[in-house]
Amino acid sequence: MNQHAQPRSGSPLLDHSPETLPAAWYYDPEHFALEMKRIWARQWVNVGRVKDLAPMVLKRIEVAGESLILVKDADGGINCFHNVCRHRGSELCRQAETKLKSRLITCPYHAWSYDLSGRLVRTPFVSDTDDFDKAEHGLFKVNVKLWNGLIFVCLSGNPPDFAKAPDLGSHALDNWPMDDLVTGHVFVKDMACNWKIFWENYNECLHCPGIHPELSEMVPIYSKGYMAANEAPGWTPEDHEQGTVLKAGARTWSMDGTACGPEFPNLSPHERERGQTFVTFYPTGYVVAHVDYVRVVTLRPVGPERTELRAEWLFPEQTLKSPGFDLGKVTDFATMVMLQDGAACEMNQRGLKSSAYSGGRLMPQEFDVHGFQNWVRRQLA
Amino acid sequence: MNQHAQPRSGSPLLDHSPETLPAAWYYDPEHFALEMKRIWARQWVNVGRVKDLAPMVLKRIEVAGESLILVKDADGGINCFHNVCRHRGSELCRQAETKLKSRLITCPYHAWSYDLSGRLVRTPFVSDTDDFDKAEHGLFKVNVKLWNGLIFVCLSGNPPDFAKAPDLGSHALDNWPMDDLVTGHVFVKDMACNWKIFWENYNECLHCPGIHPELSEMVPIYSKGYMAANEAPGWTPEDHEQGTVLKAGARTWSMDGTACGPEFPNLSPHERERGQTFVTFYPTGYVVAHVDYVRVVTLRPVGPERTELRAEWLFPEQTLKSPGFDLGKVTDFATMVMLQDGAACEMNQRGLKSSAYSGGRLMPQEFDVHGFQNWVRRQLA
Amino acid sequence: MNQHAQPRSGSPLLDHSPETLPAAWYYDPEHFALEMKRIWARQWVNVGRVKDLAPMVLKRIEVAGESLILVKDADGGINCFHNVCRHRGSELCRQAETKLKSRLITCPYHAWSYDLSGRLVRTPFVSDTDDFDKAEHGLFKVNVKLWNGLIFVCLSGNPPDFAKAPDLGSHALDNWPMDDLVTGHVFVKDMACNWKIFWENYNECLHCPGIHPELSEMVPIYSKGYMAANEAPGWTPEDHEQGTVLKAGARTWSMDGTACGPEFPNLSPHERERGQTFVTFYPTGYVVAHVDYVRVVTLRPVGPERTELRAEWLFPEQTLKSPGFDLGKVTDFATMVMLQDGAACEMNQRGLKSSAYSGGRLMPQEFDVHGFQNWVRRQLA
Repeated sequence: MNQHAQPRSGSPLLDHSPETLPAAWYYDPEHFALEMKRIWARQWVNVGRVKDLAPMVLKRIEVAGESLILVKDADGGINCFHNVCRHRGSELCRQAETKLKSRLITCPYHAWSYDLSGRLVRTPFVSDTDDFDKAEHGLFKVNVKLWNGLIFVCLSGNPPDFAKAPDLGSHALDNWPMDDLVTGHVFVKDMACNWKIFWENYNECLHCPGIHPELSEMVPIYSKGYMAANEAPGWTPEDHEQGTVLKAGARTWSMDGTACGPEFPNLSPHERERGQTFVTFYPTGYVVAHVDYVRVVTLRPVGPERTELRAEWLFPEQTLKSPGFDLGKVTDFATMVMLQDGAACEMNQRGLKSSAYSGGRLMPQEFDVHGFQNWVRRQLA
Repeated sequence: MNQHAQPRSGSPLLDHSPETLPAAWYYDPEHFALEMKRIWARQWVNVGRVKDLAPMVLKRIEVAGESLILVKDADGGINCFHNVCRHRGSELCRQAETKLKSRLITCPYHAWSYDLSGRLVRTPFVSDTDDFDKAEHGLFKVNVKLWNGLIFVCLSGNPPDFAKAPDLGSHALDNWPMDDLVTGHVFVKDMACNWKIFWENYNECLHCPGIHPELSEMVPIYSKGYMAANEAPGWTPEDHEQGTVLKAGARTWSMDGTACGPEFPNLSPHERERGQTFVTFYPTGYVVAHVDYVRVVTLRPVGPERTELRAEWLFPEQTLKSPGFDLGKVTDFATMVMLQDGAACEMNQRGLKSSAYSGGRLMPQEFDVHGFQNWVRRQLA
Repeated sequence: MNQHAQPRSGSPLLDHSPETLPAAWYYDPEHFALEMKRIWARQWVNVGRVKDLAPMVLKRIEVAGESLILVKDADGGINCFHNVCRHRGSELCRQAETKLKSRLITCPYHAWSYDLSGRLVRTPFVSDTDDFDKAEHGLFKVNVKLWNGLIFVCLSGNPPDFAKAPDLGSHALDNWPMDDLVTGHVFVKDMACNWKIFWENYNECLHCPGIHPELSEMVPIYSKGYMAANEAPGWTPEDHEQGTVLKAGARTWSMDGTACGPEFPNLSPHERERGQTFVTFYPTGYVVAHVDYVRVVTLRPVGPERTELRAEWLFPEQTLKSPGFDLGKVTDFATMVMLQDGAACEMNQRGLKSSAYSGGRLMPQEFDVHGFQNWVRRQLA
């Protein structure tokens, strides 16, 4: 469900009931291919953390069905290339990771070698010809941007302005030491649903009372089907500070609501009081920052009806090393919520394949679902 | 094989050798989709027995690839709906069966509730808008008919006249207490063949001597490759009573030919003498009624080259409860015959995918295969 | 890798760097279907050895996705038919092999019987009609040719001139007793690559130093990236006898280079000295003949990205029966080389699916890859 909306001035509720996206957009293979091309291959996609990328190692990743390699040189510069040699098309990196023996990326087939900026520098055993110019046969490069310790790549040669991409210009995480956190736990789930189903579930809380009893207790406003206080009838901007907050006594998302270690020192009183800060970046994922740890969730569409969800829990290094640190107390809570949402997404996916159902209607409370669907429509237009 | 044809006046044999259906109709995915639409989504399809449907339970079924729900209200009225909520398209029934807690069908996602006639009655946590009218957002309804204790549904909004559909107007089972029988055994087989291959096999007995040695002994006429006596050279209508009958001493289809319990009291002398009464309803299945029990066979096309066969053996309740009742003696016989036919259907399916074979020829004895193929042609025209 | 090129007069090196085939030709299902039709269904395809075909047995084989049957009559004549009955399209041979009970091929469904030349001779239980003529309903015949003990079939009704097909007119194996050899070992590998990837790998040795360290030691010239001596700078025809030869002391491809039994008596001094003689027949396979044994390699495309490789090691019968004969010493060597090539082919296949890669460039040393690619282009034109 969507916990990311913060109270805004004025009611966000829709004054009408718009139509949903057409049902076929959630399972038609041709439409999926179009979304891969128009959305996933054009937008900035999170492919991991800077800290988890060792220098002088090729790391194989996949974006929009494309096999890519990430490499960090000795100076910390990060490059990304398509995982293919310009000769006869062999892949360059055969495993999840390959340690480099030199400052060269060497194709395992015929040993063509490229420097870490992608220039072709060696073609062993091969004679020269007038019509072949090494300078024209460098690796196919992919754009890279770093933000809050995360690596984003964009397959398009003409990427959107990073700071204007959905929420990537946000300063909401400025008070968290994002670059320095250490990954303490990873949860991966293969969901039998289209990637958009995930975002629609994320963008409303009408389902919270029925699907998330424990979360609705942890965040009391969710038990009313609201994402934020400004959805309540009669809400006024003066009520601002009574926004979305954890229940009395709870500091963070954990099984008992207590923090798992020291709180981050630079948070504002409001960030501390609220207990959860969401930043969302379509289409690829979101971050939720708590007073004691941060969770990063990333999607990877595998097919029209399959999406891989990956969640990483990030901690200060000292927290992980503290005697008595209880990892499960922290990770079990969000894992439970994600499993509940995953099951809901899968039943939504199965249902909308009915030939009788060509599309549905959104309710006033589904204003952020509507916003997401309009964002999708714009990308495809 | 086809045991359903009863002797008719005059020879049924064809006087020529017509062409079969084109081979591609048995494996081409586009043609399969067309048959789903033009045949399976337009005809009455058997989806189970009234007696096996508990009241106040949602039962999930599948017809022509569509997920549907059946529900019997407290008064015994049966309704069928597409298994999809009108809101964002979630499925309504996630398991094979869901017990209702009230006289409402409640969507598990956002708790929209419908009454048992399909009307939308509750949309919790949701504000009203002028452009959304609950009355226009009831469940998608599917037509239902009951016949001889069986439930038939038709996806089409304009279903064919039930009594004129293939054999559904038949009175052949009037002397059996169809409504009251109890299911004693179920056999399900996933066959690697197109659904039409099954019917063609069912509609001739040229294969009986080679494929069914035991059945050909049980029904002597089958050992000559006939389905019925009127196929014999020189047969005249006066020979009528020497129609298809079990071998001397046999009363029913069972391993030793003896009945498994009391015979049904209201059968005619001819029904008793014949020992088997077939009623066929294209495209969905057939019933064969014996003096002591009834078998219902139902097809479900799963793909161009996959068909699920389901056989149910129905008995008087007292037979099942009789001391010494031997279920296996009854069920083993037809199971053996169905496994023999299934293997034949699968080898037929594999063979006709040869690119050299575009179609074959029917022999005079294959008049019912020809009739079935013409029925298919008419539905697709 | 390609070991088949023998030194020719003049340098074979290309004087330019031609483009490769389009990348999509290696994975697009429609292009694969086109190649099946234009290449595999039109060319002569090796389907086994005459010696391995028992008389009076139906042997089921598959060519270009078609199920076929091979049968050798009592006089040794070999016929090949599509594995389908002319009646309703059942397959004739359900297992890998079926022993005949008479000189008839009998369909297991309705017992239609054909003689071993394919003529329809019996249709049991069936009445005659004027419009059905048995003579017009014989089995669908497939062309057969025998060569060096191998059976070749061609699905086309208009097969290419056998002796002019790639290398099938070659006399290179005349000094080996091909008909009499006995199969001592079979190795089958399912490769996740397009069939053309295999041939491209076979047709160059630039990859030998990196991929095949053991083979490059066995055949010293391979360690320089050459397939044959005439690729060396400054090579002249006078150097002819210093062609591709095994390392000093080695007689054959085996783990220690020694022969596994008596050498074939009729080889020329050059055939003996060279230690390896390759004959290649596109698209289906190649033979490599050594002084002591022969290896036959056959491809079968299973899908756009799957190819089955089958290797058979053939020996004089007396070699197999010799005390102390060490089969593994012989078979391990080529098995190792084929596994190395298989892994290279699979990484090539994975890489060229990158959307960034539409095709690459061939180097001067890849003249035989270029020749193969032009052969493919001609077949498709």
